Amino acid sequence: MDLNADLGEGFGIWQLGDDEALLDVITSANVACGFHAGDASTMRRVCAAAARRGVTVGAQVGYRDLAGFGRRYIAYDHAELRDEVTYQLGALDAFCRLFRTRVRYVKPHGALYHAAATDETQAAAVVAAVNDVNHELPLLCSPGSVLAQLAVGAGLRVVAEGFADRGYLPNGRLTPRGAPGALVTDPDEIAARAVRMATEQTVVAVDGTVVSCPVESICLHGDTPGAVASAGRVREALTAAGVTLTAFA
Amino acid sequence: MDLNADLGEGFGIWQLGDDEALLDVITSANVACGFHAGDASTMRRVCAAAARRGVTVGAQVGYRDLAGFGRRYIAYDHAELRDEVTYQLGALDAFCRLFRTRVRYVKPHGALYHAAATDETQAAAVVAAVNDVNHELPLLCSPGSVLAQLAVGAGLRVVAEGFADRGYLPNGRLTPRGAPGALVTDPDEIAARAVRMATEQTVVAVDGTVVSCPVESICLHGDTPGAVASAGRVREALTAAGVTLTAFA
Amino acid sequence: MDLNADLGEGFGIWQLGDDEALLDVITSANVACGFHAGDASTMRRVCAAAARRGVTVGAQVGYRDLAGFGRRYIAYDHAELRDEVTYQLGALDAFCRLFRTRVRYVKPHGALYHAAATDETQAAAVVAAVNDVNHELPLLCSPGSVLAQLAVGAGLRVVAEGFADRGYLPNGRLTPRGAPGALVTDPDEIAARAVRMATEQTVVAVDGTVVSCPVESICLHGDTPGAVASAGRVREALTAAGVTLTAFA
Amino acid sequence: MDLNADLGEGFGIWQLGDDEALLDVITSANVACGFHAGDASTMRRVCAAAARRGVTVGAQVGYRDLAGFGRRYIAYDHAELRDEVTYQLGALDAFCRLFRTRVRYVKPHGALYHAAATDETQAAAVVAAVNDVNHELPLLCSPGSVLAQLAVGAGLRVVAEGFADRGYLPNGRLTPRGAPGALVTDPDEIAARAVRMATEQTVVAVDGTVVSCPVESICLHGDTPGAVASAGRVREALTAAGVTLTAFA
Repeated sequence: MDLNADLGEGFGIWQLGDDEALLDVITSANVACGFHAGDASTMRRVCAAAARRGVTVGAQVGYRDLAGFGRRYIAYDHAELRDEVTYQLGALDAFCRLFRTRVRYVKPHGALYHAAATDETQAAAVVAAVNDVNHELPLLCSPGSVLAQLAVGAGLRVVAEGFADRGYLPNGRLTPRGAPGALVTDPDEIAARAVRMATEQTVVAVDGTVVSCPVESICLHGDTPGAVASAGRVREALTAAGVTLTAFA
Repeated sequence: MDLNADLGEGFGIWQLGDDEALLDVITSANVACGFHAGDASTMRRVCAAAARRGVTVGAQVGYRDLAGFGRRYIAYDHAELRDEVTYQLGALDAFCRLFRTRVRYVKPHGALYHAAATDETQAAAVVAAVNDVNHELPLLCSPGSVLAQLAVGAGLRVVAEGFADRGYLPNGRLTPRGAPGALVTDPDEIAARAVRMATEQTVVAVDGTVVSCPVESICLHGDTPGAVASAGRVREALTAAGVTLTAFA
Repeated sequence: MDLNADLGEGFGIWQLGDDEALLDVITSANVACGFHAGDASTMRRVCAAAARRGVTVGAQVGYRDLAGFGRRYIAYDHAELRDEVTYQLGALDAFCRLFRTRVRYVKPHGALYHAAATDETQAAAVVAAVNDVNHELPLLCSPGSVLAQLAVGAGLRVVAEGFADRGYLPNGRLTPRGAPGALVTDPDEIAARAVRMATEQTVVAVDGTVVSCPVESICLHGDTPGAVASAGRVREALTAAGVTLTAFA
Repeated sequence: MDLNADLGEGFGIWQLGDDEALLDVITSANVACGFHAGDASTMRRVCAAAARRGVTVGAQVGYRDLAGFGRRYIAYDHAELRDEVTYQLGALDAFCRLFRTRVRYVKPHGALYHAAATDETQAAAVVAAVNDVNHELPLLCSPGSVLAQLAVGAGLRVVAEGFADRGYLPNGRLTPRGAPGALVTDPDEIAARAVRMATEQTVVAVDGTVVSCPVESICLHGDTPGAVASAGRVREALTAAGVTLTAFA
């Protein structure tokens, strides 16, 4: 099983999350590429730190929207989004190469992640960019999303991720934020759900039913109080359960 | 002899210069990388058009300053500038690769060009970035500049450029803007100066003396009225004089 | 009748449209406020030029999106949009005050104009900002839009505008771009339609029916080839028809 | 005596300092205006909170440089800087007016503060903007700076500020950062120095001599660990010494 988290999401003087601490927990780092967050020096520092620890680096591509942190939907047209994703992939790869590694996968951020799950234009733009830049790069995304479907159709590898700290509906989808059970906050419960995902490929839905959840990576969050501690708990629980933690790419 | 010009300097809806027309004249295109000008779709389009014509692409790296078009000095520290240059090189290279070419050289833009000619911190930052990204990339810059000196010291190739439309002092330096004779505007005279640079490696200074001007490339300007026509005139005159026009990289 | 047009839509080195020429034609200038276009020096210059001619200045407020020129929908939440509109109103007003005038009305730009026509969240945010800043400021927008409805509900004055160069449907709405008859390009026809709007408060729809079109202002476009000439033709035709041209605010 | 501090220096998702806590300590809030930091919603929130407590709001104007937090010198020309300062003053004033107050003074931020202390072009641009916008607005700056001189020459009120947590040279200037004694870190000592400034208008220089320090405001810092506690200590010590704390404007 792989553990991924968003890293390098500061900008200039502003910090967000604890990159160093998370790098000791995860196996894959989704590194922000400068459009929704992440300046060049932060990108270099995170790539260096990831390379030192053998953590795989992926491009966390986002909308050009520092003010909104990439969390607001923007109605890009196909070519603009494809080209901005291409740009971000190239920029991050330059830093990876400095440390004798490469961008190994792509994960859309925030509103682009959500848009690409349902919007064909945006999903196709992400797929086109990845396909153009490097057909070998996997896309890390939600199983069943439009992005996953189009990527598979284009011959790209898709890596499905699960969320141990989010509630699931009986149909296997995430419980919408704001609905009861959308967030799991108890670290023990999060860790237990991660173990279940890794060992049984299932998750207990909000109604108590056991749902199939065939994921290759579990997404951990690092930008909330206690998040790093909770992430560490997940790692310990997985290790204790005999799960081998290793990057998917 | 090589002919270089700045391309891709629009941003979003805003256009600047006539990229297509200049591409029919030059042998090396200094493509803006998004910091002082140049959005991702423009970068892709210019790289595609350059590749179609066999024009070499170089990275025209600049300060992060769209509002000032990279023409205002910014007191970057070493690491910030090195990292932003690295970022820009990677981003542009991604577009070059789409069209089976690569970034083949680096030329600083505007205030960075001028700062790197005299400021050790900024010159060293550019050299460090180029050295880190690809030791084989030449730097296109003014002969005698601090940038040229540091680049040579780091084992990088330096390509000196001349300006057929700028006046020169007897010491071989450019006449400062605003001083008498700083700008040459007559297209015939510009063309004649280019031919002299290419065939004799000299230039006639503002006081009439003939000065050594050993350059491998002549910089043409494309963003003023009549600029493209003047650039074409330079190309014709060089060809008529038997000068072979070919990219230096 | 009032004639309005978008002005001050350059940014830094980049120009768009011919502000000076348009100022000789229009009675109300929608001045960009720096978010989708318009830097501070452009704003000052346009406010000065408008004041010299007695042209009324309105705030052309837009999304924070220079790369997309404010033409891409962005899913702002209420408070963010309200506050960014407030910010833009204050910034432009500072320049107006320098020339002993004030911001006299508000017109949303591009994707915000379109979003506010149908999206309650965004329309309400614009209304809230205008209401907070100055309850006396009219909103210039499409009749029948959600923005117009909410503004009237909040006790704001709404000024309806028409488009002499756009086709209309029999229901009084604009023909969608891309549909047959969406654009009117013949300057004589545009001028004739403007005269009809001003003198009869009607427009001939794409099916030939005559539709009511009770507008207080006609929007002219300045950023396409021939646009300024066409705008001048509209002004001449209106004057020849005895229509008094005067700002609504 | 007045106590001032920088507030509203977050941007979007990113926070910096503890605005609410500082507002309980200071009498004048230097609110960032969106160019080096501070988004519109932050500006509104800080203006509201300041108004609730009766804390005076000043415009903390800075360079357009989010990536550098306004701490890098930028070689603006006079008109560009004057106009960007005007823009920022107008934007912040719009939020002040929402809460029945106004921008009451101006303080340059970071590299602009330092540049305006020695650079006539930049100092004159700040003075011109303030003079144009409102001749009654005081400038909060270092005594003896070029900015102070030009402001006095233009008939503006200048308010001198001192730094209780910075070392002073025998000539009354600040000890340069990096030099021995540049920073005072002990909260008790900082408080004692503030009391001396307020009650005796002097400061003990790094060589032990007592130097005149006639200031109307003491600048407190809020963005370092322990800063808010230290600021509170200053306030307590001043109050205990019988100093009346009140805004200068």
